[in-house]
Amino acid sequence: MDLLDEPVPGVGTYEDFNTIDWVREKSKDRDRHREIATKSKESTLALMKSISDAFSGWLLMLLVGLMAGALAGGIDISARWMTDLKEGVCLNGLWFNHEHCCWNSNKTTFQERDKCPNWKSWAELIVGTNDGPFAYIMNYLMYVCWALLFSFLAVSLVRAFAPYACGSGIPEIKTILSGFIIRGYLGKWTLMIKTITLVLAVSSGLSLGKEGPLVHVACCCGNILCHLFTKYRRNEAKRREVLSAAAAVGVSVAFGAPIGGVLFSLEEVSYYFPLKTLWRSFFAALVAAFTLRSINPFGNSRLVLFYVEFHSPWHLLELIPFILLGIFGGIWGAFFIRANIAWCRRRKTTRLGHYPVLEVLVVTAVTALLAFPNSYTRMSTSELISELFNDCGLLDSSQLCNYANVSVTKISSDALPDRPAGPDVYTAMWQLSLALVFKMLITVVTFGMKVPSGLFIPSMAVGAIAGRGWCSPGADCITPGLYAMVGAAACLGGVTRMTVSLVVIMFELTGGLEYIVPLMAATMTSKWVADALGREGIYEAHIRLNGYPFLESKEEFSHKTLAMDVMRPRRSDPPLSVITQDGMSVEEVESLIAETSYSGFPVVVSHESQRLVGFVQRRDLVISIENARKRQEGVVSASRIFFTEYTPPQPPNSPPPLKLRGIMDLSPFTVTDHTAMDIVVDIFRKLGLRQCLVTHNGRLLGIITKKDILKHMAQMANRDPDSILFN
Amino acid sequence: MDLLDEPVPGVGTYEDFNTIDWVREKSKDRDRHREIATKSKESTLALMKSISDAFSGWLLMLLVGLMAGALAGGIDISARWMTDLKEGVCLNGLWFNHEHCCWNSNKTTFQERDKCPNWKSWAELIVGTNDGPFAYIMNYLMYVCWALLFSFLAVSLVRAFAPYACGSGIPEIKTILSGFIIRGYLGKWTLMIKTITLVLAVSSGLSLGKEGPLVHVACCCGNILCHLFTKYRRNEAKRREVLSAAAAVGVSVAFGAPIGGVLFSLEEVSYYFPLKTLWRSFFAALVAAFTLRSINPFGNSRLVLFYVEFHSPWHLLELIPFILLGIFGGIWGAFFIRANIAWCRRRKTTRLGHYPVLEVLVVTAVTALLAFPNSYTRMSTSELISELFNDCGLLDSSQLCNYANVSVTKISSDALPDRPAGPDVYTAMWQLSLALVFKMLITVVTFGMKVPSGLFIPSMAVGAIAGRGWCSPGADCITPGLYAMVGAAACLGGVTRMTVSLVVIMFELTGGLEYIVPLMAATMTSKWVADALGREGIYEAHIRLNGYPFLESKEEFSHKTLAMDVMRPRRSDPPLSVITQDGMSVEEVESLIAETSYSGFPVVVSHESQRLVGFVQRRDLVISIENARKRQEGVVSASRIFFTEYTPPQPPNSPPPLKLRGIMDLSPFTVTDHTAMDIVVDIFRKLGLRQCLVTHNGRLLGIITKKDILKHMAQMANRDPDSILFN
Repeated sequence: MDLLDEPVPGVGTYEDFNTIDWVREKSKDRDRHREIATKSKESTLALMKSISDAFSGWLLMLLVGLMAGALAGGIDISARWMTDLKEGVCLNGLWFNHEHCCWNSNKTTFQERDKCPNWKSWAELIVGTNDGPFAYIMNYLMYVCWALLFSFLAVSLVRAFAPYACGSGIPEIKTILSGFIIRGYLGKWTLMIKTITLVLAVSSGLSLGKEGPLVHVACCCGNILCHLFTKYRRNEAKRREVLSAAAAVGVSVAFGAPIGGVLFSLEEVSYYFPLKTLWRSFFAALVAAFTLRSINPFGNSRLVLFYVEFHSPWHLLELIPFILLGIFGGIWGAFFIRANIAWCRRRKTTRLGHYPVLEVLVVTAVTALLAFPNSYTRMSTSELISELFNDCGLLDSSQLCNYANVSVTKISSDALPDRPAGPDVYTAMWQLSLALVFKMLITVVTFGMKVPSGLFIPSMAVGAIAGRGWCSPGADCITPGLYAMVGAAACLGGVTRMTVSLVVIMFELTGGLEYIVPLMAATMTSKWVADALGREGIYEAHIRLNGYPFLESKEEFSHKTLAMDVMRPRRSDPPLSVITQDGMSVEEVESLIAETSYSGFPVVVSHESQRLVGFVQRRDLVISIENARKRQEGVVSASRIFFTEYTPPQPPNSPPPLKLRGIMDLSPFTVTDHTAMDIVVDIFRKLGLRQCLVTHNGRLLGIITKKDILKHMAQMANRDPDSILFN
Repeated sequence: MDLLDEPVPGVGTYEDFNTIDWVREKSKDRDRHREIATKSKESTLALMKSISDAFSGWLLMLLVGLMAGALAGGIDISARWMTDLKEGVCLNGLWFNHEHCCWNSNKTTFQERDKCPNWKSWAELIVGTNDGPFAYIMNYLMYVCWALLFSFLAVSLVRAFAPYACGSGIPEIKTILSGFIIRGYLGKWTLMIKTITLVLAVSSGLSLGKEGPLVHVACCCGNILCHLFTKYRRNEAKRREVLSAAAAVGVSVAFGAPIGGVLFSLEEVSYYFPLKTLWRSFFAALVAAFTLRSINPFGNSRLVLFYVEFHSPWHLLELIPFILLGIFGGIWGAFFIRANIAWCRRRKTTRLGHYPVLEVLVVTAVTALLAFPNSYTRMSTSELISELFNDCGLLDSSQLCNYANVSVTKISSDALPDRPAGPDVYTAMWQLSLALVFKMLITVVTFGMKVPSGLFIPSMAVGAIAGRGWCSPGADCITPGLYAMVGAAACLGGVTRMTVSLVVIMFELTGGLEYIVPLMAATMTSKWVADALGREGIYEAHIRLNGYPFLESKEEFSHKTLAMDVMRPRRSDPPLSVITQDGMSVEEVESLIAETSYSGFPVVVSHESQRLVGFVQRRDLVISIENARKRQEGVVSASRIFFTEYTPPQPPNSPPPLKLRGIMDLSPFTVTDHTAMDIVVDIFRKLGLRQCLVTHNGRLLGIITKKDILKHMAQMANRDPDSILFN
């Protein structure tokens, strides 16, 4: 009869699409820790176990950093190679990308380091020449075909093996980190398919970046590696600490910015971020950055393509264009979010959503067809950003400056502002304007398709073009590359509403502390403007679109409602379903479970007094009764269920009772009915609650769940409360 | 009779040495915000007010940054001048410091830029020559006299005008930020006196730094500027957000590290650090850094004296000495904390504490007497650190390399490891070893004296000497300056147990991302070693020594006790003092207040049911009753006090009742008696509670206050529970 004192397997776990109870998880971990600490005094083996347990977190961080860094390096190298494959092949070895191929060749000159005999464009291979309209058309055709092939492969793989691999993943990771369960979202299939399809999607030339998905990839690594350690495998809260660190790792390898990555995780994605996690994230982010650097995917011993070093100082008056760029970024961010959400909603609600493969192919075809003629859109977006960020020196080899090399005027307008601008500069500006419009429009339909797609790079590209465009001939820019960078920060800020982390990431890309002020001015303006036009960032907007139960920690709840206005049951509803601590039979409880769909029931002293004893989870109750019926002799429908400490003596003929105090939470959270909702929301956020009971003068009155709060918040903001989908 | 519906002045405020209720403060602020938002729709004026209210936070940050930056610049300039005053004066103008004096002179040569005819040492002025034993003694004497004068002035000013200005202030700021009230600690007198005495203390040559006190100065600025804005003046929680940002500002100007400052505030001092504060802190830290840079106190357009740029890479094998330095730093940190705490305890308990002025004078005399003969201790500690951090180039002008210039061997051993080391290098090493021992011992007695004193610089000096000492002739160091820096980080880490913020501060001092790894390895090792030897950092140790009610958020509470073990009343105690919601007269309540010293009373339905209605603060109750007796007609001792919503009809002859529902907190926090204490501690930390009521099956059973928790934690850690002094 005391069989149930042993833990029943399954009790205390969660179902898919459910919210975890942070308090319970953390308490469980402390119990485990206490047990190990007590045991460690008994034997040397236990002491060793205790030490290895203490260091397992660091080991895990090391592994996550190594794995994510290696994967990021692989993705970088493959994506570069496949991007170049759209234009031609290297005869020295098919596995060389364009730059690598010409770098190894003796015949490459410094002036035209992009041209070498070993690198053959498709036209050269097929028709033998690279000149004339026919060759151009042939190259064009091959470019479009490869793009279509890559994107088709990407979308097919996602559809066939891992539907969760699409998108950037950051909205879902935010939701998971806030304590939601989405099984398989960070699994090995998702990791594998996301890694492969990310390369394909980036190489296809679609207007998307690999930075957001890299965060997802890093989180998958973190989640998978958690399975190696019991401490993290068994505890949802501890696992989320690892995932927070993994998110930092993702940004660290995406931008070569370990500190920025940690701040991104802290500011943007994490929910529960204790100081211990801060330190460990930093460690993991550094390990990943150095792993990536030792792989050296770009051959420049930098972690990203668009690392720059500026040297000339900026002038105080330049703050005005920086702030104007901030305004542009804010407006673009707000516009982008609205347009993208409208498009995604249309995809969800109309027939458009039924043909994901076709959609991807059409968008790829349009992108490739429009991108090829313009050299700024034909190159990969990170290359474009790299060119825009760089200032043109006299011997600069980047294409933007090469272009000007012909007439020597472009250079002069940038580096030596005294000389007049030549006609080529105007051509470049005109091409950049076209590229700007193209990127702005195509990104709206691209983000959210069923391929892995990040937003950072396209947003940055838009801002970088706008910033560099500001420095058109005639304008008095000291450092045009800085304008591009400030513009990129502004646009990215407008879309994601990142602040500190964005500035720090950009700072880590430049290396000079003095450029923080322009970046900060633009980011701040951009955030204010964007917030004035629409309160949510793109990730929050997508979370809301998908109806995830995410309790935003940034937004203040500012309505003057009370707990009694939100709690269930409402005034007109039937009373709350409760279980009495000693008065119900197995049958009664089972019928209560069958009749209702609540995920838990309060246990009270008696129906009359409504004095609260504890709270029991539906899942635990179902599992325990099932288990008792199977394994415990004599437990039948008529058996009484007791939640009391001591079972009172039973009448002689009654069936044996079922003692369930063990599965009851003896410390349920309660608030009074007069508690202001802002305080309740605060408690839910800070403690990570699933539910909270409402009392009045010591009597149980109702219950508030996280979903109730989210619905109430949606209602207060004049949104559809039924848009919140899960528990 | 409804006079009391208006707020009574004083209700909702706190007494000195009391803990604030974060939940109530934040709720108050949301109410205020809501009111402004509602009003803003009514008139243009109100809309303007609402906008100005929204931007007042940013304006305040700007002002804090400007003020703290300016003050830091002033402190830097005056301290340099007064430090040099100990050695001599500039005849061109008394207000020039040594470097400035010789910089302006035409006769200064590059080789000996420290020597110029305008700068006269005291011996030259008094006896006419700088050579010979008599001149040496004269300089020695003047050095000691000036040091004694400065330190005497410092300690006298502190004693006479602002006793709170002593020490580093960080332990107290941590406590204040956690929600404790210490009136005057951040007031204008403290600011004024601390600024002046900080300059005096640093100039006196005592082994202390200005970095910690700068945090205190910045926090004073923040607190004083809060008075300009109602939003921050009236709300203790909002004010603490400003103080958190001000702490970041302090570190930002102390080390020229805005990002490091923000992380320091987040990691080390702040308690409640929402993301909004993160962004604002960053802004304020940047403003302060740029204000300081435009003041340019060191004439090198850097914010600190010891900014360095390393260029040569480090070798992977060098990680071994870095880790060894970490171990040294950890051991030193643990030793320092123990020794310093033992010394401070002795000061508190013996007669030593009665003669603070004498103590300061004696320590200054000893410091000055021992410091003068050794050139490495004679110079100011930040100059020493600067010299140790710098690598010697062939044309380097710093004294450490100048010294070697004579024989050209010291340089060779550092910059060109092939050449043999000369005898002068050994002399330098010998002097540095003496300096190390001296700094290690004197810092223990210096920190905690009644003058402003920071720990960062002396700790860094110890580490820097040890690190540079590692690179003694024969050792194969690539960059000796890097060793000094790693050593400094290790020692600082061992003493303060900072992690991320320390690495980022050091990173901002160097400028190369690649030096993060050595810094991290040393910091991590140092923290582990120090934690193994003693769990607390110096600030926590001082908090505990002073008995402040600080609930450490880093330490996990790992004991298996329940709320019922901690709550008052204990089993043998008389029952909890409660007020019934409608059954007590003014007289009864007054006698309850007189008899007990509790800071609040639960309100229950009746003594029999013990069902909880709310909680009323003692201070609010006293003020309200006093106020009612004065202003409300007919309220006498026999008047009944009602906490109910509606007052029941009174018998005809009874005195008018007193309605006090308005001052009652209708949403007191409750936990059940079976709640594990780790969860209770978590709730207290995360929500910032003052007290929490304990119930059992819906009946009120007891109360847990923050002090009870701290006492319990002290007891569990085998410390004296009565060491917690305040409420």
